[in-house]
Amino acid sequence: MLRNGKAYDLLRQLTKQIGGRLSGSPQFARAVSWGKFTMEMIGPDKVFLQKCMIPHWVRGGADAAAITEMDKKPYPKKLDVLALGNSIGKGTITAPLLAVADFAELDKRKDSVPGKIVYFNKGFDPTNVSPFVSYGQTGIYRRSGPSAAAKYGAIGVMIRSLTESAANDPHTGAMAYNDSFPRIPAIAVGPRDADEIWNLTRRSALTVTMTTNGKFLPDTIGHNVVGEVIGSAFPGEFITIGAHLDSWDVNEGAHDDGAGVVQTLEVMRVFKALGYKPRYSIRFVLFANEENGLRGGTQYAMEAEAKKEKHVFALESDAGGFTPRSFTVSGLQPAQLEKMSSWIKLLSNYGITKISTGGGGADISPLNRLFATPICGLEPDPQRYFDYHHARTDVFENVNKRELLLGAINMAALIYLVDKYGL
Amino acid sequence: MLRNGKAYDLLRQLTKQIGGRLSGSPQFARAVSWGKFTMEMIGPDKVFLQKCMIPHWVRGGADAAAITEMDKKPYPKKLDVLALGNSIGKGTITAPLLAVADFAELDKRKDSVPGKIVYFNKGFDPTNVSPFVSYGQTGIYRRSGPSAAAKYGAIGVMIRSLTESAANDPHTGAMAYNDSFPRIPAIAVGPRDADEIWNLTRRSALTVTMTTNGKFLPDTIGHNVVGEVIGSAFPGEFITIGAHLDSWDVNEGAHDDGAGVVQTLEVMRVFKALGYKPRYSIRFVLFANEENGLRGGTQYAMEAEAKKEKHVFALESDAGGFTPRSFTVSGLQPAQLEKMSSWIKLLSNYGITKISTGGGGADISPLNRLFATPICGLEPDPQRYFDYHHARTDVFENVNKRELLLGAINMAALIYLVDKYGL
Repeated sequence: MLRNGKAYDLLRQLTKQIGGRLSGSPQFARAVSWGKFTMEMIGPDKVFLQKCMIPHWVRGGADAAAITEMDKKPYPKKLDVLALGNSIGKGTITAPLLAVADFAELDKRKDSVPGKIVYFNKGFDPTNVSPFVSYGQTGIYRRSGPSAAAKYGAIGVMIRSLTESAANDPHTGAMAYNDSFPRIPAIAVGPRDADEIWNLTRRSALTVTMTTNGKFLPDTIGHNVVGEVIGSAFPGEFITIGAHLDSWDVNEGAHDDGAGVVQTLEVMRVFKALGYKPRYSIRFVLFANEENGLRGGTQYAMEAEAKKEKHVFALESDAGGFTPRSFTVSGLQPAQLEKMSSWIKLLSNYGITKISTGGGGADISPLNRLFATPICGLEPDPQRYFDYHHARTDVFENVNKRELLLGAINMAALIYLVDKYGL
Repeated sequence: MLRNGKAYDLLRQLTKQIGGRLSGSPQFARAVSWGKFTMEMIGPDKVFLQKCMIPHWVRGGADAAAITEMDKKPYPKKLDVLALGNSIGKGTITAPLLAVADFAELDKRKDSVPGKIVYFNKGFDPTNVSPFVSYGQTGIYRRSGPSAAAKYGAIGVMIRSLTESAANDPHTGAMAYNDSFPRIPAIAVGPRDADEIWNLTRRSALTVTMTTNGKFLPDTIGHNVVGEVIGSAFPGEFITIGAHLDSWDVNEGAHDDGAGVVQTLEVMRVFKALGYKPRYSIRFVLFANEENGLRGGTQYAMEAEAKKEKHVFALESDAGGFTPRSFTVSGLQPAQLEKMSSWIKLLSNYGITKISTGGGGADISPLNRLFATPICGLEPDPQRYFDYHHARTDVFENVNKRELLLGAINMAALIYLVDKYGL
């Protein structure tokens, strides 16, 4: 696979010919066609689309923001910003800034909030060895920060981008309004600009002007792309391997999750090339709408339930196309975990040195909830993921061919082991 | 260290303020001053320079090459090339090309060699999981290819760049002439251009024009930069930690070996910040002239021998500033290896999951040869190293701050463990 692997060439197609592919966009529809065509060329037993309604959020134009020190001659400093996904734009608004470290400070200063634009400075804790832990600690500011501020009367929200990157690119991502409060506009600020805001607020009162245009169009039809190889011994029992086909609109979705998409296709290709006949039925799934709705993953599990399918295992790759380090699993019995851990010695030459508990993947999580299916996530080296995550820099050029292929090799090996020896 | 580490800022200084620093260049002398100053600011017990004579090779101008299909109207295609380090230029020469896969084919076609420019197509074997294995298999073409071809009467040599990178940047590196044969000029060709040469030779006879200007100026004075913290229990017994300060001239020497330099300084800084009083004397060494002579490492070991120092352990970081994965060791007794392996559980949270045998570092290898000192190398994830190695792309921007610091953390931990518990 390191010699003849096609994952990198496929990733070039997906990122350079199609590009960003947010749910509802023409690019997402093209990505579905590309995924179906690519699977058909590989030639599993079946290729089909699974229809689901998906949200159709659009950015609606260029996001912008600038700050002015109120006691100085107005000389606005432009900020590099991106509206948060699912946020509703309000055109251009101007208001005094209230900068807070976190939710606790917001609560303390709630009487100052009405009429302001609130800035949350909460950033990654660099002492976490895995940046995914930092993301877990701060993601709530992106998802819920807007409504938390609206509750106290804010008219707009800015958050520090969720990254430790040294670059100033802002990082978008999904938010969700709490319908009890007004839907105020919300943007992410580039990390260097965030530093400057935070420093300036120590010495000056600031005014912010922000321009946002996000809106929802009516839900539209989307599809999961599914390839299936029918099992020789247990055709009615399924192993799922997948990744999500949608991405944000501002980049090429190369690591998130183009990498997982082409790794899934690579595993299918290799099984076909080797003439491998699995014991279980294997489903290769490119999920719709992970980023701002999870409708594809939900649909897949609901159809499985309706058809009373049995799902024995699911694997997702959605943490970037970096060097593989471990698999994380949820829903395994202790004996199953021990069995899987015994396979480490087979995988360690290719980079996987650990099976740890507590992970999986967003798109396969509904399978786990509905059927208690054991779910597993490929966990590559995490250090660079949030340099690119939801930022303009998540492009093909930032994926290394060998790291990408090594991930696919480990995924193929794990699926083979689960299929051959069971769990 | 992930919060307050200074290694990344120091690397910015070394790469952006000084840049490429080949032995004998003004930049190398500046790097020595910078290293000494930086150590003095940290403040170990002693900082001193260790003088040695170093070679002074210069590229002498822009390297160039172009190929022409002989049976076509002359329409030369320019190649992206770099002269090999230590090679002697001949200005512009033109000759028919003889392209061979490897030394075996060269031997077979030796009667066709006289008067030709020989191209070696030997590249990395992509099926090696570690590209360092591939480098081990092909490095001899760079080091000895020129004289192997000169032996049969070639007047110039071109090699495929030693990389699997998808980019066309050529990769230089040291070669050495066998004095029994003429010193013919030698260049490395960008990998995409190498593909094209190899394809064209299947259908056409080719002529090559190559321009090289490399030469040696008289040896000059260079220095190892050494900081020392005197041991509380065994002041006459030394632990060495180091990296090489020199780099190639065409890049910033960021991964090779700026990363190791600033990691070494970071370990010194952290020990000082923590007020750690080591039991053994610890030497922090920035070695001169690893790339094209190893004079610094040799000098260090020879002075140690002259002073009858006892050297109990040495650690080098010279495989890039990527996420740490393992330590490789040479010269350990089985019981020592077992002891060191027992420390894995302390390191694994920070990325090191293995101690393996067979490694070390070029600059500390003379210590191992003279004193049988156990030597150890930090082995980061190897997949991207040869994308940058000796190419123009080895610049600051291609180093990730967290990956760099995690390497330093593991080095600090290992030195602490060796100092505290012995080997």
